[in-house]
Parts: sequence; structure tokens; C-alpha cells
Amino acid sequence: MDGAVNLASKLALLPGPYRPGLVGYLNDYKLLVVNVQGEFVWHAHAETDDFFLVLSGRLTIQLRDRDVVLGPGELFVVPRGVEHCPKADEETHVLLIEPRDTVNTGDAGGERTAPPIDLR
Amino acid sequence: MDGAVNLASKLALLPGPYRPGLVGYLNDYKLLVVNVQGEFVWHAHAETDDFFLVLSGRLTIQLRDRDVVLGPGELFVVPRGVEHCPKADEETHVLLIEPRDTVNTGDAGGERTAPPIDLR
Repeated sequence: MDGAVNLASKLALLPGPYRPGLVGYLNDYKLLVVNVQGEFVWHAHAETDDFFLVLSGRLTIQLRDRDVVLGPGELFVVPRGVEHCPKADEETHVLLIEPRDTVNTGDAGGERTAPPIDLR
Repeated sequence: MDGAVNLASKLALLPGPYRPGLVGYLNDYKLLVVNVQGEFVWHAHAETDDFFLVLSGRLTIQLRDRDVVLGPGELFVVPRGVEHCPKADEETHVLLIEPRDTVNTGDAGGERTAPPIDLR
């Protein structure tokens, strides 16, 4: 990383919803941007917490017992092992931070499993 | 963390510049907000990269060979071991992410060394 990373510019390079883009690393963590629209899949990560920061739009992180709703400048960390399913009614831009070996769909797998696109 | 963490609301609780506030954890990392105004101290972290995301204002991360200037929605990761000195002319709000045992002034120490205020 040679200079400032503008997250909006990186998000504009993504092909569509739920395909994360890699913008950098923090030690052994991935810094990812993702465009959320519609509903993802229910999943959990047994080995790690899961960080979400909304940059624009409105993200609902569905948990089994409640919803957590995030607007711009709001973050939430899903604890490890907790089932969650993100969704958004409008196009919503999110910064995700996860260990390098984390799979986007966690324990669920399926067609939305995808490695990030390298936007560095 | 029970629900959404609004970073602007947390920043409003801080007493002044360069005193970080703890808003949560991501595994063994601290999620910190800090209000930057004026110049910090030159320091490095031998054991970790250092994550900066600007939420509002304008942050200059001085490196020995160049400056990295960040506006809202822009991030930069200072690599481990690299000397840096943040500064801002105006009040600037920043999200920092560091391992739990990281000291804010790194190897420099001095009067600005301070643990974060717990804002959880």
C-alpha cells in the first residue's frame, strides 16, 4: 500500500453485490470492501469474529434472535460462532475485516462462496 | 457489543485530541476512535501494522520519505516498523485498529502515552 486507499473508488470497481474486493492487509487480516444488495446466506465463522462498518446505505445484520441495523459510520462485530445473514434493501457499501483465511460464506458454502477480487 | 456502534457518538464522548476511545474488539484487536488535531509524536510499532481510516476531516500521516493524506472514507496501513507521525490542521475523526497490547506512542513513549478510554 503506497498511499491513501479511497474506499468509494475501490467499490466502484466491483462487478456487483456480494463479491468482495481486497484493498489491503493489516497483519494477517484482509481489508475488504463489498457492495451489499439483497440478502446473503445464513452462516457462521467458528474461528473468528466478523467486522462490518457501513460506508454508505443501510445494512441489516440478521441474527437468530434480533436484527442489527447499521447506517453510515456505524459498525458491528459478529462474535465468532454466531449465525448471521446480512441484507440490504438499497445498494450498501461495507468495509469488512477478517483473517486472511476466512471464507466469505463461512460454514455455509454454496454458490456465493468466492475469493475476493484483488483491488490493491 | 449488543448493537450498532455509532462512531460519531463515541467520538463526542472523548475529552480532546489524541486520547483514544475503545469501542470494541475484533478477536485480539482493539477498535479505537480518536480525535486528531495538531501533531502527534514520531513513533513506530515494531510488532504490528497500524490501521487508520478517516471518518471526517483530513489526516496527514507523515512518513520519513513522504506524507500520506487521507480524507473521509480513505484508509492507510502503516507497515510494522515504519516511523510515522500523524497530524491534522482541523479536528479529524479516525478509526484505528491495533492488537490489544499496542501502545499508542509505540517505541517513543512520553507524555502522550495513554491507554484508551473504555467507551463500550
